[in-house]
Amino acid sequence: MELWYTEKHTETVDFSIKVKEHLHHEISDFQEIDFFESEEFGTFFTLDGLMMVNQKDEFIYHDMITHVAMATNPDIKRVLVIGGGDGGTVRELTRYASIEKIDMVEIDERVVRCCQKYLPQTASQLTDPRVTLYFEDGLKFIANQENSYDLILVDSTDPIGPGEGLFSDVFYRDCNKALTDTGILINQHESPYYPNYAHEMKRAHSKIEKHFPICHVYQFHIPTYPSGHWLFGFASKHFDPIKDFQKEKWESFGLKTRYYNTALHTGCFALPTYVQELLNEK
Amino acid sequence: MELWYTEKHTETVDFSIKVKEHLHHEISDFQEIDFFESEEFGTFFTLDGLMMVNQKDEFIYHDMITHVAMATNPDIKRVLVIGGGDGGTVRELTRYASIEKIDMVEIDERVVRCCQKYLPQTASQLTDPRVTLYFEDGLKFIANQENSYDLILVDSTDPIGPGEGLFSDVFYRDCNKALTDTGILINQHESPYYPNYAHEMKRAHSKIEKHFPICHVYQFHIPTYPSGHWLFGFASKHFDPIKDFQKEKWESFGLKTRYYNTALHTGCFALPTYVQELLNEK
Repeated sequence: MELWYTEKHTETVDFSIKVKEHLHHEISDFQEIDFFESEEFGTFFTLDGLMMVNQKDEFIYHDMITHVAMATNPDIKRVLVIGGGDGGTVRELTRYASIEKIDMVEIDERVVRCCQKYLPQTASQLTDPRVTLYFEDGLKFIANQENSYDLILVDSTDPIGPGEGLFSDVFYRDCNKALTDTGILINQHESPYYPNYAHEMKRAHSKIEKHFPICHVYQFHIPTYPSGHWLFGFASKHFDPIKDFQKEKWESFGLKTRYYNTALHTGCFALPTYVQELLNEK
Repeated sequence: MELWYTEKHTETVDFSIKVKEHLHHEISDFQEIDFFESEEFGTFFTLDGLMMVNQKDEFIYHDMITHVAMATNPDIKRVLVIGGGDGGTVRELTRYASIEKIDMVEIDERVVRCCQKYLPQTASQLTDPRVTLYFEDGLKFIANQENSYDLILVDSTDPIGPGEGLFSDVFYRDCNKALTDTGILINQHESPYYPNYAHEMKRAHSKIEKHFPICHVYQFHIPTYPSGHWLFGFASKHFDPIKDFQKEKWESFGLKTRYYNTALHTGCFALPTYVQELLNEK
């Protein structure tokens, strides 16, 4: 018997991975959670059937969500992660001795517990003493915060199901309020290539632009996400990721990274023309 | 009935496209040629079952193989294209009024004739008066050239089947000989993500480094190639793509491009750390 996991990147485009073992299946209060073992990607997990994280290329996503902001403002002390139940984003943050406080708000505790069991590669640093886990709705959590964080990382699913509110106008407004005067927001910005994703990318971008004076988008290659071409948004009240880039300071930390580096820090903001044009469409 | 085309990106990873119509099938003297019509990618064609070109994202590949070199040395007059039977690379070259001569050497005339019939989007400029088509082995053609071209673009298939010799040591040596003293070689450099492709990427790179004093690698996102993360090599006797970049001169041409732009020219050379490390391995 052969077992294959298939994700529909569009209605007429499939991406399929041969599975060695279906390790876990459950339906939590929020979504369907599955863990698989595969030859090419090691252990991976899906939420409502969509690829979230796998052992082979999670370093790309977690490098890029974390280090671009940290190299723009290396003095960041207080960080909020919204979503990110696999723990990979927190793992990267804990590598900075200078960070004092990491709050992670994940709506679904079961994602965290399953990742602690099946994906210790990403979840291992959730027990760092600086980390506090909140299992609640990120939208409600952020509504009560003011001037609380230097950095917010929105490590969410796509804007369907539990992740939908994390792409809303009120959420981006509340992120602004929750940030200090020099605060930075990094958000999951979807992808430019397939129309459904490009539509969400444009919507997110136009909403964020209403709430932050500095808004950029950067790209990376992550082969297991639809099209392999994925984006994060960089929104800020004060710091510009290129002009304020603290190259030497970041290099002085001596962090070993497998995707991010200081040349790529600048390079990843150079978007293809068609992506720029989509982002500029109103 | 549903008809799906599947390419195996690895033995355990499949990429599948729903097909509206199988437009053409033949076995030429060199390879199996198929043309399909699809909803997501429009018309696409495969050689020996592997995706070559499709209407949706061919602009990415053809922008990136052509404009990086032309913006490094806008005085290029004589160009050799090896492979490139679909005509997309020649199409981009013909947009430069300053280019005087374009020789294209494609081993398989049937690829050209089929593209002229089914993919006029890419093949339409093969009749430009500056273009001469040679239907012969690129390896033999180049062996007889000396100081003949300012630019060679190797627009080949993977290093299996007819494309194999275009990744060989003797071929890169002959490219050097065929180029003028300021000549540039752009070659299809495979991909860093899946091991089989990464192996070929490393082999190509180490061979080219023996024959050219300036060797760089640049990347782009092309979702229909395995992993979506693809590379070209930039090898040169004289020009450095960053230091000698002629930004203003290139912009003065007023060419409208959908992927390439002058910010991306520099950005695309900023490779992820793991890719740099693979390229540096001996």
